[in-house]
Amino acid sequence: SRTHRIAVLAGDGIGPEVMTESLRVLDAVESKFGFTTERSEALVGGAAIDDGGHPLPDATISACEASDGILFGSVGGPKWENLPPDTQPERGALLPLRKHFGLFANLRPGVCLPSLTHASPVKNELIPNGFDVLCVRELTGGVYFGSPKGREERDGETVAFDTMIYKRSEIERILHVAFTAAMGRGKRLVSVDKANVLASSVLWREVATEVAKDYPEVELEHLYVDNAAMQLCRRPDSFDVLVTENLFGDILSDEMAMISGSLGMLPSASLGSKKEGSDLYFGMYEPSGGSAPDIAGQGIANPIAQILSVAMLLRFSLGEADAAQAIEDAVAKAIDDGYRTGDIATGAASEKKVGTKEMADAIL
Amino acid sequence: SRTHRIAVLAGDGIGPEVMTESLRVLDAVESKFGFTTERSEALVGGAAIDDGGHPLPDATISACEASDGILFGSVGGPKWENLPPDTQPERGALLPLRKHFGLFANLRPGVCLPSLTHASPVKNELIPNGFDVLCVRELTGGVYFGSPKGREERDGETVAFDTMIYKRSEIERILHVAFTAAMGRGKRLVSVDKANVLASSVLWREVATEVAKDYPEVELEHLYVDNAAMQLCRRPDSFDVLVTENLFGDILSDEMAMISGSLGMLPSASLGSKKEGSDLYFGMYEPSGGSAPDIAGQGIANPIAQILSVAMLLRFSLGEADAAQAIEDAVAKAIDDGYRTGDIATGAASEKKVGTKEMADAIL
Ligand SMILES: CC(C)[C@H](C(=O)O)[C@@H](O)C(=O)O
Ligand SMILES: CC(C)[C@H](C(=O)O)[C@@H](O)C(=O)O
Repeated sequence: SRTHRIAVLAGDGIGPEVMTESLRVLDAVESKFGFTTERSEALVGGAAIDDGGHPLPDATISACEASDGILFGSVGGPKWENLPPDTQPERGALLPLRKHFGLFANLRPGVCLPSLTHASPVKNELIPNGFDVLCVRELTGGVYFGSPKGREERDGETVAFDTMIYKRSEIERILHVAFTAAMGRGKRLVSVDKANVLASSVLWREVATEVAKDYPEVELEHLYVDNAAMQLCRRPDSFDVLVTENLFGDILSDEMAMISGSLGMLPSASLGSKKEGSDLYFGMYEPSGGSAPDIAGQGIANPIAQILSVAMLLRFSLGEADAAQAIEDAVAKAIDDGYRTGDIATGAASEKKVGTKEMADAIL
Repeated sequence: SRTHRIAVLAGDGIGPEVMTESLRVLDAVESKFGFTTERSEALVGGAAIDDGGHPLPDATISACEASDGILFGSVGGPKWENLPPDTQPERGALLPLRKHFGLFANLRPGVCLPSLTHASPVKNELIPNGFDVLCVRELTGGVYFGSPKGREERDGETVAFDTMIYKRSEIERILHVAFTAAMGRGKRLVSVDKANVLASSVLWREVATEVAKDYPEVELEHLYVDNAAMQLCRRPDSFDVLVTENLFGDILSDEMAMISGSLGMLPSASLGSKKEGSDLYFGMYEPSGGSAPDIAGQGIANPIAQILSVAMLLRFSLGEADAAQAIEDAVAKAIDDGYRTGDIATGAASEKKVGTKEMADAIL
């Protein structure tokens, strides 16, 4: 039977408890679809700091290197908030993981199911059928990693600077990911930049327009980032796929996630290059929401984002598309059947209000 | 009697028609409060391009230099959209005006009146009393003007870059503006940055924390920009004053404006230094919305943003606070009396649906 290796990094806050449930779902599809996974659990984030002082220990990197893909929970919490930024759980684990594994393509679905529009902050009449946007964020370039970055004294005062920088090839490869995704969906792509101000955005727009020639069926539109931030709150259902650079993607994908109504429902994938001779990617899969320390340990967190992260792992890194689909279908069914964790419940009599484990049971 | 000089730059799209109405309101407060204005009209944006090829002619700069403040309409439209970015109406007029006059402090109120929550995309139950946020955006620094900015060939491919850079003194002066504004309002300030990634944001956060010591009554909170983009859509009424750097301010103030429900209601001020020996600023005042070419010339645009821009001009640059207050009160009264332009109408029988001129009549 087929065997895959995965690294399991549960992390902090609700990470461990939603991870436990998602691994039960993975067990279930393994026996149903006839494959197995070797799982290597490793410390990350605050848990790793508490253990050995570093949010991303070498042993964790090794476990990831030996895997076909990383299943990640979430990191961070008040306990580590006052450490210097570089050594904090989020920053100190996520950025080095992205860079080390070249995870340049961040796919973040922003889905508001028609039955869950009440959970969105947006008026129901603006999103009568919910919406389904895919945000493709460039994840290893731009102002996050550009150099020079730092500070110095100039004319007797401190000056601090960052460099927003893109190479043509970096823009090309993320645009190909976005156009390919659009081909498999509604064939409409919005590329977001600030080409009226930024030189890096002018290049971004040029390259997007060029790459578009390879995908004549996809309709490409360019939006300025300020305009995109506006349209996302008023007309989220007008988007199909949205592609943008690292910093804009950070802001817009979070805005989109909040607008979708439940962060607890949204998985994400951070993909590197394709594996040699295959259509599969090395990637890292994690919920879009954070570690939610306020509700950790109470058994009430929504496990769906983590469970759908397993589905993305199966599809993009393990080549188990049928198992992925089965998970996605089961999640949709559980929602249809009325199962609701607190974050998506309205209190209506037709709902079955459940905790983390019961939601996973329903999906199973 | 007191005389002030103002430059009037109506611009494109709905600019001229809302400007006409706002000047009628200015006439009214002049006779009521016993002062006069000398108005120097000048071309800007597309209108200036059509006239002489440049969006910001020297004659316009001179008119502004000779004034106590600039009343600005709006610029841009499809006709000039395909010019190179540098020479387009928005970019080619706004950025040079900001730089030339050192307009470093952009004040953008984001107000959703309790009677107009229906116009906001956010669910009424999330904003039962509407909201009133003031966004303070740094306007002459950061990645907009930082150098180096451009492109070059490296290792055989094109690379494009921008520099996000802040001096301590630039951060200090905008923070003082924001803290002062907070002192005159709810005494709560949220400073938005990305200090977990950007060196310029680390300095920003340090300086904000230091400047806070001068304003012990103001409660300062720091938010990361991705989090701020989320909170603005879910809890806009949790903010009092928000301060941030240029690019984040561009994105967040537009998001906030959209969330407030009517761009047609929101004025803005871009302030430079205080005039010598006075508490007044040289500044430029303009609606937050754009030139709205789709409804230009139809007499249906909401003139309130332009009229409230006159009020800000009176308060911050001309020292006519009573006249400013009279205008703001009259606008509130017109809304209370049920006058509604199309952008804020619901169709309810109690409303008086009006056009641009009738709204100004109601305010007058
Ligand atoms: C923690 C932080 C460095 C990170 C980012 O900005 O990329 C986070 O906000 C995210 O989006 O994954
Ligand atoms: C037109 C553009 C250069 C400008 C900006 O980005 O500042 C505009 O979006 C604004 O906010 O006034």
